[in-house]
Amino acid sequence: MRATIMYCAGDVRVENVPDATIVNPTDALVRVTRACICGSDLWPYKDLAPTEKGRRMGHEAVGVVEAVGKQVQKVKKGDFVMMPFAFSDGECAFCHEGLQTSCVHGGFFGFSEGVGGAQAEAIRIPFADGTLFVLPVREDHALLASLLTLSDVMGTGHHAAVAARVAPGKKVAVVGDGAVGLCGVIAAKRLGAEQIILLGRHPTRIALAKEFGATDIVKERGDEAIEQVRKITGGFGAHSVLESVGTEQSMLTAVNIARPGGAIGRVGVPHYPKAPAWEPTFYKNITISGGPAPVRAYVQELLPDVLEGRIQPGCVFDRVIGIDEVPDGYRAMDKREAIKVMVKP
Amino acid sequence: MRATIMYCAGDVRVENVPDATIVNPTDALVRVTRACICGSDLWPYKDLAPTEKGRRMGHEAVGVVEAVGKQVQKVKKGDFVMMPFAFSDGECAFCHEGLQTSCVHGGFFGFSEGVGGAQAEAIRIPFADGTLFVLPVREDHALLASLLTLSDVMGTGHHAAVAARVAPGKKVAVVGDGAVGLCGVIAAKRLGAEQIILLGRHPTRIALAKEFGATDIVKERGDEAIEQVRKITGGFGAHSVLESVGTEQSMLTAVNIARPGGAIGRVGVPHYPKAPAWEPTFYKNITISGGPAPVRAYVQELLPDVLEGRIQPGCVFDRVIGIDEVPDGYRAMDKREAIKVMVKP
Repeated sequence: MRATIMYCAGDVRVENVPDATIVNPTDALVRVTRACICGSDLWPYKDLAPTEKGRRMGHEAVGVVEAVGKQVQKVKKGDFVMMPFAFSDGECAFCHEGLQTSCVHGGFFGFSEGVGGAQAEAIRIPFADGTLFVLPVREDHALLASLLTLSDVMGTGHHAAVAARVAPGKKVAVVGDGAVGLCGVIAAKRLGAEQIILLGRHPTRIALAKEFGATDIVKERGDEAIEQVRKITGGFGAHSVLESVGTEQSMLTAVNIARPGGAIGRVGVPHYPKAPAWEPTFYKNITISGGPAPVRAYVQELLPDVLEGRIQPGCVFDRVIGIDEVPDGYRAMDKREAIKVMVKP
Repeated sequence: MRATIMYCAGDVRVENVPDATIVNPTDALVRVTRACICGSDLWPYKDLAPTEKGRRMGHEAVGVVEAVGKQVQKVKKGDFVMMPFAFSDGECAFCHEGLQTSCVHGGFFGFSEGVGGAQAEAIRIPFADGTLFVLPVREDHALLASLLTLSDVMGTGHHAAVAARVAPGKKVAVVGDGAVGLCGVIAAKRLGAEQIILLGRHPTRIALAKEFGATDIVKERGDEAIEQVRKITGGFGAHSVLESVGTEQSMLTAVNIARPGGAIGRVGVPHYPKAPAWEPTFYKNITISGGPAPVRAYVQELLPDVLEGRIQPGCVFDRVIGIDEVPDGYRAMDKREAIKVMVKP
């Protein structure tokens, strides 16, 4: 089968690899209907050290179950499923608490040894019963794009909003105009935010953010952006800040635009060792929360809104490519020519 | 009048200073019945750079109102009052939200220019109506010590517990066996924690912690402490960690003993610029919250428990001194000979 492998920064290849198969009796084999490229895939695309074996890429997909292991009970052949970016056994304390990204037997697609990536024709799913969510529609459903976002980007935007304690009447700021930030706008609107400020300057993304419910756009950067956010929030900053980038600079901006007593929901994988401005954060009583989104736990809540068209996170996809064009998809996202690229293997 | 002035690290003096007076029409003048020395006073005691003018010390007191300015309406001469460590106007958005430590006109006793300290015979209180809490008892009340703790240490322990999301059934760990940590134990017990682990090795403090409701004591340090906490919490760590120290090491310990999905309530003033272990904190989805406690907002909730004897935070005081002995009180707390020193001017 064809699968995506990254060998080092900037070197993504689609190659023939042995077909994915059932390995453990709790596995399922899923033929990928749609996959995509994640903003977080761009980090190794920028800085992955050369590796001989390469890293299988992709952790978001919807697809059809082709086969299941002997111990799989809930998922069956022919089911149309959503695959969260993390696999989880569905049985441990953390799975029961809805924090599947901390499952004691779990891991992340594309990172855990022996588990493939989703930017491929097929993928082996560990702990199929705990990991997969069986979608109540067929694989040719009109809302395929939005369903695909439940495997990461929409669930992650929602997690940022939940971690930042978005609620009716709150003033919200979103740092980062990538697909996660845009889904954060959807999530903030969905949770009743009164004001939603997107920090960004890319015209296409701004237009989409407005469509999703952003009430204000701050195009300035650095200190000017901070001043502008404070000004349009009545002087004090935002109750809730969604940090969807993961750089020290973006966290610093988040801290500076957060209102005293406010909360920052961070979902951008941090690429810096220590959190900045630790004393101001303390004196302002700011709460910092977030991490890898337990998207498996959020499907139940978000799915009805997707199926009934109340939210349309699938609009973040502005390019659809075949499996062999994946390297160009990385390039396009890295150059910010595309917001998010969908892969149709 | 006599007042405490710190000139540099280790140099605390009690001197004759001009009597405190009403300056603004919203001020009250309070004769100090009891004050105390705070763990946070030990930071400048360790590292204050030499200053010619000196810094007035003390930010916790109960006392009697001697006079009020013309615009003071709620507080009147003769009232027995509790003074929170922060003054606040009682009218701004943050005061209304119960975050008086972020009051737009507020400040901290001992820090704000022209506002004296409480380790003195009397003190000027800015924004008396917003700042002071009139106690429904007389100044010779038997529970004076516990009432005094509402001005900082008990409210701060409570804030740590609230920020760390302590609730019935939760496993709680307290980092720091100072007076705030001990009040954190009281707060955790009061909020229904199932297990309360104190990290400490000082026999007197351990005994008090057990009296207050600690179920487990971890005397180990560093990695051994982390391993021990994980072991006694069933392998995963504590749901809620109260960080009452303020060093990078104590925050690192807090991160390492927090269960995935758990929360750290930090009330130790951070004496380090950046938060450590930022990536692990992210991957574990740990929430970090806290800051200067809005003790003014907590009095209403904690006072009945103090007056009816259900909690006895006043037990943290193990030494009572006169105003002229204050320098020795600093020495005793710094050497950990005393847990917390009460001052009777």
